[in-house]
Amino acid sequence: MSEEELEALCGELRDFLITHVARTGGHLASNLGVVELTLALHRVFNTPHDSLVWDVGHQCYTHKIITGRRDRFSTLRQPGGLSGFPKPLESPYDVFVTGHSTTSISAAYAIACANKLKGSDDYAVAVIGDGAFTGGMAYEALNNAGRSKTNLVIVLNHNSMSISKNVGAFARYLAVIRSKPSYLRLKEWTENALDHIPVLGERMKEALRSSKSLLKFILYHSTFFEELGFAYFGPVDGHDLPALEQVLTRAKALHRPAFVYVETTKGKGYEYAEKNPAVYHGISRFDVETGNPDVSLEDSFSAVFGQELCELAEKDSRICAITAAMKAGTGLTEFSGKFRNRFFDVGIAEQHAVTFAAGLASQKLLPVVAIYSTFLQRAYDQILHDAAISRLHIVLAVDRAGLVGDDGETHQGIYDVAFLGTIPGVTVYSPATNRELKAQLEKALYRTDGVVAIRYPKGSDAGEEEFGSDPAADWVFEQNGGRIAAVSYGRISNSLRRAIQNIRRPVDFLKLNRIFPLEDALVQQLMEYQRIIFFEETESAGSVAERLCFQLSVKGFSGRFQAVTLPDAFISQGKVPELLKKYKLDQASMEFILREEEAETCQK
Amino acid sequence: MSEEELEALCGELRDFLITHVARTGGHLASNLGVVELTLALHRVFNTPHDSLVWDVGHQCYTHKIITGRRDRFSTLRQPGGLSGFPKPLESPYDVFVTGHSTTSISAAYAIACANKLKGSDDYAVAVIGDGAFTGGMAYEALNNAGRSKTNLVIVLNHNSMSISKNVGAFARYLAVIRSKPSYLRLKEWTENALDHIPVLGERMKEALRSSKSLLKFILYHSTFFEELGFAYFGPVDGHDLPALEQVLTRAKALHRPAFVYVETTKGKGYEYAEKNPAVYHGISRFDVETGNPDVSLEDSFSAVFGQELCELAEKDSRICAITAAMKAGTGLTEFSGKFRNRFFDVGIAEQHAVTFAAGLASQKLLPVVAIYSTFLQRAYDQILHDAAISRLHIVLAVDRAGLVGDDGETHQGIYDVAFLGTIPGVTVYSPATNRELKAQLEKALYRTDGVVAIRYPKGSDAGEEEFGSDPAADWVFEQNGGRIAAVSYGRISNSLRRAIQNIRRPVDFLKLNRIFPLEDALVQQLMEYQRIIFFEETESAGSVAERLCFQLSVKGFSGRFQAVTLPDAFISQGKVPELLKKYKLDQASMEFILREEEAETCQK
Repeated sequence: MSEEELEALCGELRDFLITHVARTGGHLASNLGVVELTLALHRVFNTPHDSLVWDVGHQCYTHKIITGRRDRFSTLRQPGGLSGFPKPLESPYDVFVTGHSTTSISAAYAIACANKLKGSDDYAVAVIGDGAFTGGMAYEALNNAGRSKTNLVIVLNHNSMSISKNVGAFARYLAVIRSKPSYLRLKEWTENALDHIPVLGERMKEALRSSKSLLKFILYHSTFFEELGFAYFGPVDGHDLPALEQVLTRAKALHRPAFVYVETTKGKGYEYAEKNPAVYHGISRFDVETGNPDVSLEDSFSAVFGQELCELAEKDSRICAITAAMKAGTGLTEFSGKFRNRFFDVGIAEQHAVTFAAGLASQKLLPVVAIYSTFLQRAYDQILHDAAISRLHIVLAVDRAGLVGDDGETHQGIYDVAFLGTIPGVTVYSPATNRELKAQLEKALYRTDGVVAIRYPKGSDAGEEEFGSDPAADWVFEQNGGRIAAVSYGRISNSLRRAIQNIRRPVDFLKLNRIFPLEDALVQQLMEYQRIIFFEETESAGSVAERLCFQLSVKGFSGRFQAVTLPDAFISQGKVPELLKKYKLDQASMEFILREEEAETCQK
Repeated sequence: MSEEELEALCGELRDFLITHVARTGGHLASNLGVVELTLALHRVFNTPHDSLVWDVGHQCYTHKIITGRRDRFSTLRQPGGLSGFPKPLESPYDVFVTGHSTTSISAAYAIACANKLKGSDDYAVAVIGDGAFTGGMAYEALNNAGRSKTNLVIVLNHNSMSISKNVGAFARYLAVIRSKPSYLRLKEWTENALDHIPVLGERMKEALRSSKSLLKFILYHSTFFEELGFAYFGPVDGHDLPALEQVLTRAKALHRPAFVYVETTKGKGYEYAEKNPAVYHGISRFDVETGNPDVSLEDSFSAVFGQELCELAEKDSRICAITAAMKAGTGLTEFSGKFRNRFFDVGIAEQHAVTFAAGLASQKLLPVVAIYSTFLQRAYDQILHDAAISRLHIVLAVDRAGLVGDDGETHQGIYDVAFLGTIPGVTVYSPATNRELKAQLEKALYRTDGVVAIRYPKGSDAGEEEFGSDPAADWVFEQNGGRIAAVSYGRISNSLRRAIQNIRRPVDFLKLNRIFPLEDALVQQLMEYQRIIFFEETESAGSVAERLCFQLSVKGFSGRFQAVTLPDAFISQGKVPELLKKYKLDQASMEFILREEEAETCQK
């Protein structure tokens, strides 16, 4: 293809992306930014023999379109459709599942090592953004890969705009090396000059390379990446396709680890997205002409959390808020403006976020760490070792807890109940309504000690009436003299209560607000029932149902215990209501199950 | 104190350390290395107002001795005695619990922020080794702390010798900047020269600092740490007390983040330890004169694992071994020598280790990752997201699973059963003997798919006879027609079988080899029993007992279920046999409990 044809192709790809994401929702800004980069990678490298690993793979749309999935692109993020992330089961061009950040260098380096062990000359390429570089795993992998003799290329996609505006010293360092083309030019100039002096020039180059001279320091150690053993190229304009191809070709020719610094513009080619890349990072359906998304997040649980935390922080100067690069997503934008000194965006660094919070707590401050359930998985050890062992009082605001829908397997918040429940001394609240979220946040901060988590789902309060008079009570028990107790917590409690009302049979309704630990008095109360049925939006392993069942059993419970939970499996993308229905956690399924249970109890 | 008196004090402290650790066991080499550094820190900083955070706190012995705990030092690591790690409950001079690596910068930076928020001028100091710098959290924290306006000093204790020999590009980088005193001297020389030119000199210094010139690059950006915003000092001889005090005083005077590079010799002052620092890293009791430890680790589970893996790797070139800076501890020394290309020591980087293994597995190699149970906690997300979602076949060799004894709370391997059990599709084997370990490792590699863990305790096979004829069977059921089934797995299975033999009553004995998942046929077999009693060396939350109880209950089990496990708590240091006795997991307690159960069953 000619240069003009390629340019036209990029334009077509952008139009295609905008039109389709407007219909399906998805990650837009990052994908618009890497259209040329994706084409260049596929033109220079021989995929799928060479492996492309996309970090936090939501930037893989163009890659999917040009590797045979254009026709199915309208199914993106739909039930049974294309995944929004790389998925090896979908295509041999998708090498590694990447939904969480900062894993690409580890995976690509491993693939490069495997190629070498097999005697293959194939390449492995990691494409990683500057945001992902705030995660520690990048350094763990760079440290290993740097001086290896492998066919590895790391492409840094610098768009100065990860999900939240990128903060920290490393981002500034990147800005500094970006502004230093002079050294690179100097280096290139010297090498070129020496290239033109036959024999002697080559020797001088060698001498320079092996010397410890100051000149060498200037010429050959211009960046941290070079110090770590990578050949360094850049910065390159990420929207200049010929330049990209040229640099990638040179990097590939070296047959040793290379680091290519590419500058792109997030949202490139769609005015609204260029102006507001954060808004178009992950977006629902929107109107292409106006750029307006068709849902508002104003009354989401995240927003309510953020507002309430501001109100509490107004009165208490000990309250600090910490986020791992998700300021807007976790509802902390207002807090960050109002309490600048007490707001800490640590980058995509969940481990550091939790240990940092533990450090603040050791000084009697009141840290609240807001992280999505799925990303909190990365801080398991820090919660246990750095906070819980010392009973430090930190509050984990676990956003997107439960099924999340379109993002699928890699982002479901259905493991936090299980993994938090394995950490001694942790208290977990699981509110179902805005009012409960506020009251339980206050309780977590002031009337609970040690590590406290408060978990709430993506989306908003269903506008239900309240459970009980005290939204911070550990549980609400609505007893109608039934022989069956139906138990639940979180957002599906609404469906359960309605189901019980609808079937008009004597079934007692227990709604938990605090799910760990379960109070002995409550377990004792449940001993009286003939049947207990637990509806729970979490995997079965490590569920509250499992814990409760065990506590009842060792006390000698003689009734029947049933649990309806999600399976112990990875759950694919789909709309949340449909997934709840599939796993019998919707109101209609609950009614059916309760009727059956009730009928069986009566027969006895 | 005069310089001579201080030197004498250092000698005394070293003698004291050697004598005491020879009796109690503990970490010796690292402590001998930081005697002067500890004194210098305490002389320059005003502890406990200023906070000292020791990374992987096992180097805190001198710190403990000089902060009022000299008299109790003979109780180190003994039940009820001093902890081998910093412990705030023990002393106000211990600011933060640090048993796992690479947390100190996060914690110290948080303390520095807290001081600033409170308007205090107090300092926070992190002391971190070059080994810990292979962990990603260090960068996450540096990235945040670098350009902050806080009273923070980071001391890099470079002893070129973390637990395993330090590998990777960053270690080489440290060696490079260590060998570059010329630039530092040049910088100092220039500044000094300018200092002697009144008025104009100051202006020139300012101009230099704010310029973007090449000269500035040479003078002011000599290290990565300076690029990240730290004032950089070093390298300093870590055994030269006056020099240390001078540099720390200068760093403190700046009132902004400073990075001090200190060089020490591990094992300093004890010949055997200087020559073999890895042996004296963590050591049991030893003879001071000969340096000989009084236990041999030759037949430990770790050693057996290493030997077996070598035998398998001899026949199968796909097998790779990965360790996170614990080559000797995990028994992989022989493997690393024999199969250099297939051995990967990734540094103290458990996250990267697991994702790297997943990457190898994606290329159909057979990676085995050997990590201690307590450290594997840090790779929870990587196991789940990078390996299990894609059903990549990796083998986790989980060493030090169960109670570990003297290291206490921070190192107990009593959570892996629980957290591995929450990850969908993970298979877990738990051998009790050498023969089982070998057979189950083979089964994990060749007859199991997806993520497989094989967990084994610290120490060695008790030399028991074998359970059943097939050491790789998923379970062994010795049925004597009893109405009680007693269940266990791992090393305490030995005690349970002996207990059953001793009481001479009809109790059936079920030993599990595969603890997750539990096969339905087995659960079905257990439905027949009147009583089931489960003995388990893990926390109760997330235990196999809990899972089994739930599976039985939902099937309608009508018998009685009891479980004897460790409590859901952090368990302090103590000898393993004593701890097992305390929690009723020793043979005598088992006999007592079984007799009682049996008597109750007969009465019915």
